[in-house]
Amino acid sequence: MDRISATYLIETPLPVEMAAASLAGEQSSGTFVPVPGETEELKQRFAARVEKITPRETVNSPALPGCRPSDGKFQRAEIVVSWPVENMSYNLPALVSTIQGNLYELSQFSGLKLMDLELPPALARHFRGPKFGVAGTRQFTGVQNRPLIGTIIKPSLGLTPQQTATLVQTLADAGIDFIKDDELMADPPHSPFDERVDAVMPVLHAHADRTGKKIMYAFNLSDELDAMLRHYDKVVRSGGTCAMISLNSVGLAGVKKICDVGALAIHGHRNGWGLLNRHPFLGIEFPAYQKLWRLAGVDQIHVNGLGNKFWEGDDSVVRSIESCLKPLFPDTVAAGVSRLNLRENRSGLTSAPATIGDFSVLPVVSSGQWGGQAPETFRRTQTVDLLYLAGGGIMAHPDGPAAGVHALRKWWEAAVDGLTVEQAAAKYPELRMSVETFAGKVR
Amino acid sequence: MDRISATYLIETPLPVEMAAASLAGEQSSGTFVPVPGETEELKQRFAARVEKITPRETVNSPALPGCRPSDGKFQRAEIVVSWPVENMSYNLPALVSTIQGNLYELSQFSGLKLMDLELPPALARHFRGPKFGVAGTRQFTGVQNRPLIGTIIKPSLGLTPQQTATLVQTLADAGIDFIKDDELMADPPHSPFDERVDAVMPVLHAHADRTGKKIMYAFNLSDELDAMLRHYDKVVRSGGTCAMISLNSVGLAGVKKICDVGALAIHGHRNGWGLLNRHPFLGIEFPAYQKLWRLAGVDQIHVNGLGNKFWEGDDSVVRSIESCLKPLFPDTVAAGVSRLNLRENRSGLTSAPATIGDFSVLPVVSSGQWGGQAPETFRRTQTVDLLYLAGGGIMAHPDGPAAGVHALRKWWEAAVDGLTVEQAAAKYPELRMSVETFAGKVR
Repeated sequence: MDRISATYLIETPLPVEMAAASLAGEQSSGTFVPVPGETEELKQRFAARVEKITPRETVNSPALPGCRPSDGKFQRAEIVVSWPVENMSYNLPALVSTIQGNLYELSQFSGLKLMDLELPPALARHFRGPKFGVAGTRQFTGVQNRPLIGTIIKPSLGLTPQQTATLVQTLADAGIDFIKDDELMADPPHSPFDERVDAVMPVLHAHADRTGKKIMYAFNLSDELDAMLRHYDKVVRSGGTCAMISLNSVGLAGVKKICDVGALAIHGHRNGWGLLNRHPFLGIEFPAYQKLWRLAGVDQIHVNGLGNKFWEGDDSVVRSIESCLKPLFPDTVAAGVSRLNLRENRSGLTSAPATIGDFSVLPVVSSGQWGGQAPETFRRTQTVDLLYLAGGGIMAHPDGPAAGVHALRKWWEAAVDGLTVEQAAAKYPELRMSVETFAGKVR
Repeated sequence: MDRISATYLIETPLPVEMAAASLAGEQSSGTFVPVPGETEELKQRFAARVEKITPRETVNSPALPGCRPSDGKFQRAEIVVSWPVENMSYNLPALVSTIQGNLYELSQFSGLKLMDLELPPALARHFRGPKFGVAGTRQFTGVQNRPLIGTIIKPSLGLTPQQTATLVQTLADAGIDFIKDDELMADPPHSPFDERVDAVMPVLHAHADRTGKKIMYAFNLSDELDAMLRHYDKVVRSGGTCAMISLNSVGLAGVKKICDVGALAIHGHRNGWGLLNRHPFLGIEFPAYQKLWRLAGVDQIHVNGLGNKFWEGDDSVVRSIESCLKPLFPDTVAAGVSRLNLRENRSGLTSAPATIGDFSVLPVVSSGQWGGQAPETFRRTQTVDLLYLAGGGIMAHPDGPAAGVHALRKWWEAAVDGLTVEQAAAKYPELRMSVETFAGKVR
């Protein structure tokens, strides 16, 4: 029988076996007294199973309030729990209610974080996953063998469609690969969605006609469902290739519905992520999170960036990038991609596998990026399958946006050549200027 | 100009004014260096504004990791920040990205929790809110002047549609007002949604024909969007009155789309809530959370219960119930309900205002409830506008489910009469039996 496994980091005042069993019980049967009909046979078939317990350290105070008992010692452990696929069938919200539902409420735990998921091949046959992923995004933009260089329209709010289009023209002339709306910009009266599309797309088409270069623009679709579908259609009819969704704000059912349409690459913005992740013993870690969105069909997903302006450390960002580049179904070729392809992909120097979709998702590196983070990003991840976003790093470049984009590409060449920031700045005068302008400014 | 205000509990290593200003900046402009086009006029019009700062205590260690600087003292404060409605327009996901987006990521904070929202009357004119709410739920079920008594089909998983229907028959005979699927039960192969509806609804119709009593059954709709719409239609065609959605698993856009249909009362299950709320300095508090779902149109929402089996304390549950019973737009009659009506409603002894909808939401009390919590629940909230769910408290009653339902109603009569648990048990022998069976068993 196919089973879905979830790995949790837990902390509990109880014996770990007992706490783990209560989690498994709550998430597959669950009331506080035995009830008629809860037969042994039924339990056998549907019960969640504790597969593995790996004890960790013991601590003297609880990570979260409300556990019972609340004094004494608190044991930390990594536990693996599995459920038959039958319990939730092929239903993503039901899956989430199972692996992330009431279990955070349990007083048996003083800490609980979902670390990772293991998905059986049966899901690969049911879900299409990202329609475009890494290969499709590269195909849309014609960018191979290096990260896509992108930026965000700033200021986030206030520009009219025409002002946005003027900025897009500047960025197009600067050689940008990708542009996105800010997540705060959706469909306000001063920049209605359709008018923004009507202003921006002609600039991109004219640029493509002139240069052959197709810039991808991620229009922020995030809205109520009918508006999203209407706006999606507008982008398609206008010849666009991408739309952005704030994943946490829209939610799983809405995002999946949009991804299912399958005409645009979906750029997944994870704003609100800190709420789900910032505490070490509450919430969900990115390796698990990104799997849910890949099942839903998101093609590009935000992972923050090294040396970012936010709270997250580099190790966590590296783990996030790595998790995106791992196959979603490591033990199957059902999704139409060989493991060999994916391994080549990981080398970072070949481009993504030829098969479009294949459950691959393009990591979107952003937050305070100006190019100086490229050497360390490449050293630690060994990949160029990235969408590398710089905001101020491009628009605030002292020699203008074209110099900003040029510098970012140069930073990535230097990174792939194995140069450090110091070596790159010594070799290329334009990168020395970047260092002087931006280093130490990220906050 | 209409503005939306959000109150946050924050903790920061920086001067509070500086931290608050960085939040306002990130959530309305937001990059790490000034960019061209960020004019003073534009800032004036769209900038978020720090309205109020109320300092709290200072602590010596940070509530969350990753703040900068990470040593020294950490100041706690309550701050109020406001945005022009124009920024996000009438777009719930954009609202969420604004008030709950990247701000949890900011290294300027070592703690940040959204406590409450203040919504301008303009939103009351745009959003319909709950189609049915308290009055509609009462009208569907014919229950007035006391809480609706409900239960959850258990075991959560494994029953066939026919077994579920048999249990529904038992519960109908027992005099129940409301029955719901467990949140883990959606549309699995052993109980396909449509077959469950086909098995359950004839039992409810026959019961209504025989007794005049219309029991509300909340079928768990939670699924991908097309499946939810299909299943919704199935419930409507079968004469049902309610459907349940796991709010956090489905997400805001999906939930709003379903609520907008407006033929069924929507029962909002908040599983996953602990992830969003359990840490005192991360996430969102229920007074803010329930407002978002009322805007979306949810008619009934889970609030946990007093003396529950989970981690949450009674004070928090009481505050949640109170927040549901407060008008969503206190300064307006735009939603078609007078403030007087709502005040009468709060007395707990009159039934809900006659106007269906009116942005009212019915609090759903559950988790380890057996009736003994009724006196304290009424004493502290002074309302009978509740849907009171008991699982084991009904099905595991030693004299059978009918005795379980009878006892729950009796507990509520005693509660409204102002009796304590001890007084109620002394006055009514059947309540003494409840105490002997269930007291101390909730875990």
